[in-house]
Amino acid sequence: MPLMSGSESLSPEAIHEEIYAMGKRARAAGHALANLAADQKNSILRAMAAELRSQATVILSENAKDLEDGRENGLSSAMLDRLRLNESRLEAMADGVEQVAQLSDPVGDVLDEKERPNGMKIQQVRVPIGVIGIIFESRPNVTSDAAVLCLKSGNATILRGGSEAIHSNRAICDALQTGGEAEGLPPSSIQLVPFTDRESVKEMASMDRYLDLIIPRGGKGLIETVVSLARMPVIKHYDGICHVFVDEAAELEMARLITVDAKTQKPGVCNALETLLVHEGVAEKLLPEVASSLACLGVELRGCQRTEEILGEVVGVATEEDWRAEYLDLILSIKVVASKEEAIEHINLYGSHHTDCIVTDDLESAEKFLREVDSACTFHNLSTRFSDGEEFGFGAEIGISTDKIHARGPMALRELTSYQYRVRGNGQLKESPY
Amino acid sequence: MPLMSGSESLSPEAIHEEIYAMGKRARAAGHALANLAADQKNSILRAMAAELRSQATVILSENAKDLEDGRENGLSSAMLDRLRLNESRLEAMADGVEQVAQLSDPVGDVLDEKERPNGMKIQQVRVPIGVIGIIFESRPNVTSDAAVLCLKSGNATILRGGSEAIHSNRAICDALQTGGEAEGLPPSSIQLVPFTDRESVKEMASMDRYLDLIIPRGGKGLIETVVSLARMPVIKHYDGICHVFVDEAAELEMARLITVDAKTQKPGVCNALETLLVHEGVAEKLLPEVASSLACLGVELRGCQRTEEILGEVVGVATEEDWRAEYLDLILSIKVVASKEEAIEHINLYGSHHTDCIVTDDLESAEKFLREVDSACTFHNLSTRFSDGEEFGFGAEIGISTDKIHARGPMALRELTSYQYRVRGNGQLKESPY
Repeated sequence: MPLMSGSESLSPEAIHEEIYAMGKRARAAGHALANLAADQKNSILRAMAAELRSQATVILSENAKDLEDGRENGLSSAMLDRLRLNESRLEAMADGVEQVAQLSDPVGDVLDEKERPNGMKIQQVRVPIGVIGIIFESRPNVTSDAAVLCLKSGNATILRGGSEAIHSNRAICDALQTGGEAEGLPPSSIQLVPFTDRESVKEMASMDRYLDLIIPRGGKGLIETVVSLARMPVIKHYDGICHVFVDEAAELEMARLITVDAKTQKPGVCNALETLLVHEGVAEKLLPEVASSLACLGVELRGCQRTEEILGEVVGVATEEDWRAEYLDLILSIKVVASKEEAIEHINLYGSHHTDCIVTDDLESAEKFLREVDSACTFHNLSTRFSDGEEFGFGAEIGISTDKIHARGPMALRELTSYQYRVRGNGQLKESPY
Repeated sequence: MPLMSGSESLSPEAIHEEIYAMGKRARAAGHALANLAADQKNSILRAMAAELRSQATVILSENAKDLEDGRENGLSSAMLDRLRLNESRLEAMADGVEQVAQLSDPVGDVLDEKERPNGMKIQQVRVPIGVIGIIFESRPNVTSDAAVLCLKSGNATILRGGSEAIHSNRAICDALQTGGEAEGLPPSSIQLVPFTDRESVKEMASMDRYLDLIIPRGGKGLIETVVSLARMPVIKHYDGICHVFVDEAAELEMARLITVDAKTQKPGVCNALETLLVHEGVAEKLLPEVASSLACLGVELRGCQRTEEILGEVVGVATEEDWRAEYLDLILSIKVVASKEEAIEHINLYGSHHTDCIVTDDLESAEKFLREVDSACTFHNLSTRFSDGEEFGFGAEIGISTDKIHARGPMALRELTSYQYRVRGNGQLKESPY
């Protein structure tokens, strides 16, 4: 869908040139940002929040254009709602920026320090990554959230949003960059790609000289596209196919409550429960209780054969596809397993390595599960819904990484940094004299 | 160059199936390896070293086949030397495996630990990455070095070496896997891809379900190929275009010694000096001294205009290409700069972000340089040749990463791990009652 900003259609060469020019500017901004003190970054953030508020009329009228275009292009009402800004959403956005100013700055932290026998002193210091590309869909608040987290950690950003939010995104980026510059934000620290066609993603993905990392925020299709094109690292936030395993030694009322909370408290998010595994020793007792609670809340059940034997007609047949499904909806698949080993194996095979929980009073089983389940977050006796940067005390998160490289699980300021070895000597040579 | 193992030529579908089957086996091995205690891994490593020694005759006779093929295919004598094994090289390989057994095991280290206000206890624990793909060229000792470092950090490996070393690589892998199994090494922990054509790299690069990371070890061409194909993270060990900047406040004799050591002690490696930057305030004094020392050691000089004015005929003209060159040879480019700011800018623009050094007695200038040069290692007053995992005290290294994501600079056991959040609760729910 080659939708350009404005009305002109640009050649691939012109898009290439413009994106690479943005990359070059971002690299320079990144070097300048790396040297800003925490105080100065915080002043910049507060100025950005103020500018978002003072530009409210402009931002909302730009957002109205996107909504009108969206209606003309037949966007669903759910999509339109995601796209819509209003006074209170804008206020929440500005608040979010101010909250990031409160967080402590990870840049400059000394991670490790030692002196070697030859007297050289090695310091491993946290530094910004450099330039981060964010490729995202529809919700314009991502523009602000992602840009300010990257900024706080000393990184320049190149943002590329979807065509449906181009007017809103442009207005928000302008407010952030302009507001920040009054407090010393380097030019081009936050740049929005003016093109929203696929060619611009391709160009960004090829630009490993200027972009150190890409974070796609959106559906599986978007992530897959970025992964297949990118020459630089991509941190992926794939599905959450989260499990609760109720062990033989579980406290059954706790198991029921955790299951219901994890499934129903907010079913459309990545840390919601999708598959319940129940030890055969407690299945007959637990399942009817769980089923009746979930039925009251409108949850559809799909079970294995043993589940059907216990629950009868209230449960549908779970197929192989169900074990791999991220429903993001009021549907739960249920499997009765013979052992904790079978549960662990099922999770490692069918899960998405996001968040999985065991409910048990047996500490040995709990430790085995916590260790052997190959997921970013392994939980014992609490709802999977706590798998979240704010719940973990990180203050804000850019997403929950399902990768194992660099960042795993809730990803916040610390995960937006790299490190550098600074080594101080007094003339050490490998060989001498010369 | 579609050279198959053995003589049969396989279809792309057959290669796909075989590589994916290897991936599936590696994933299972990885899960088993993650649960081995440090002691058991060390016993396995010692058994591997013993097996390398007891299989010496087999390994050397397989290596002889590769050497013969190499001669027939017209490999250069330098290439043949890299390929050649003998008793002492094999002994060094076995020694290397035993040394890795001595290193401390990073798996299980608690990186962070805290209790949240709701009582949930969060632990961030170091875990293996899972399955690592190593794609490498010619030198058969890489097979053993890379596989055992990955094993010690709890990872399964899939190794894909070049066609020129296929017999040697197969014999070494067999010895490692067989030797280890006697001490409980899970099957398929170390697997060698039996195909050496490009199709097998393509299949590995597509297999993000089973491979968590690829580390290419070889020239720029190999790395570029892997980067352009890979769907999973790639940690890159690109060029080392290392700089020494001699500041106005440098001790000139130290500057001369560091320059000569960094350039000549081992010119063919990535942490050797390639470009010397000299502050104009000391250029007239320093350059003749440096030039005369380097001339004695046979180093060719290529300088900027000011360098030529000072040194006259002994120096050739440096072009734009020289500033971007990794000579890996007895050649040095020299530029006179007006300030430390110009030096930093030159390094950030032309360098490869590997290792760069300032020589100065002015601590403020030193700190500015250490902080503002955007390289994995920034040095003050010591030879760039110390940028190395062993010199840093890591015991062994898999390479020096020029990436900023996950691992930067010397990369050893710690950098071959990921982490996992293990969270313990007592029934926490986001909402209740249900």
